[in-house]
Amino acid sequence: MVDVKATNVHWHDGEVTLEERNHLLGQKGATLWFTGLSGSGKSTIAVALEKALYQRGKLTYRLDGDNVRLGINKNLGFSADDRTENIRRIGEIAKLFVDSGVIALSSFISPYHADRDQVRQLHRDSNFVFIEIFVDCSLAEAESRDPKGLYKKARAGEIKNFTGIDDPYEEPRLPEIHLRTDQMSLEQEVQIIVDYLLGQGIIAA
Amino acid sequence: MVDVKATNVHWHDGEVTLEERNHLLGQKGATLWFTGLSGSGKSTIAVALEKALYQRGKLTYRLDGDNVRLGINKNLGFSADDRTENIRRIGEIAKLFVDSGVIALSSFISPYHADRDQVRQLHRDSNFVFIEIFVDCSLAEAESRDPKGLYKKARAGEIKNFTGIDDPYEEPRLPEIHLRTDQMSLEQEVQIIVDYLLGQGIIAA
Repeated sequence: MVDVKATNVHWHDGEVTLEERNHLLGQKGATLWFTGLSGSGKSTIAVALEKALYQRGKLTYRLDGDNVRLGINKNLGFSADDRTENIRRIGEIAKLFVDSGVIALSSFISPYHADRDQVRQLHRDSNFVFIEIFVDCSLAEAESRDPKGLYKKARAGEIKNFTGIDDPYEEPRLPEIHLRTDQMSLEQEVQIIVDYLLGQGIIAA
Repeated sequence: MVDVKATNVHWHDGEVTLEERNHLLGQKGATLWFTGLSGSGKSTIAVALEKALYQRGKLTYRLDGDNVRLGINKNLGFSADDRTENIRRIGEIAKLFVDSGVIALSSFISPYHADRDQVRQLHRDSNFVFIEIFVDCSLAEAESRDPKGLYKKARAGEIKNFTGIDDPYEEPRLPEIHLRTDQMSLEQEVQIIVDYLLGQGIIAA
């Protein structure tokens, strides 16, 4: 007997799955979570990686202060609660991108274990790939660069609770990738990440 | 004279642009904002459209209650303020997807002009494509379907402020697409949207 009901809904007999989106894109969705001091080079590496992956035909999207703090999180300040909520929302957004098949590049100081672990758990709950990348740069070096003049203001007391000055940076214990920025060039840093993605099958050669 | 500075930064001499991501994907990022009563068929149409676009090799991502209300917006309830914040955040997330090159399909009742117009304006501020799709279904028809049994509960007073019962649904005045669901099949609804996307150059034939 013909199942008339089924023929009525053949247009949406199944949702497009993450696997199908991954197949369409020729990559696996994943979150690359850059963490490190202000001035450590997180965004610089993310921008260079984005370029390298684009040249390989891979789709990435960077989440950073420009499009998150000024957009969805513009109603958050810098209190402890708001910082935690800031990272939580970014983690949830990254997760949506992973689910869409995109490689999300998140560049935020994200100084606390608890917040980063929460984002890792969010991904784990859905069997999504989460790659923590510790952009390891000494405070002295980051402060000497001070690209936005923020350390100077923090030292002068004009900014309170600044990571590395009067608020702690909790170094990742077991990041998937540890970039010792004093020992390598930007090209090397990008290559390390690309090699990791190849090795994990996130992208293919 | 050689510009040494420039050679030092050649890895990130430019960010990957939205135009480049669109080129990679063979489509333009856009938000398709489905609005209509509970039970009007928003999600059903979005699922069917997703399938039709996938078959054309296009990348879409659906934002709906399952991945938004249970994820990034799980700390929001149903007060007037929380409803507005719910839609604001969804609009900001949709905008991030547009910026990534993805066609975002948003399926939420979004009953108020003010909230929908805010999302439209958010997109307009960045010259992003926003397509409001009014899934026009009579209250009688939606209530007769009542797929989740919500109208029954609302009529019994077990759910307060339910759109169409004791909270208004403000019909879109000038939606880009108006689907009169009593006059067309699901296949026709999907075709209307696909034709619109083709006509606007969001996707190519």
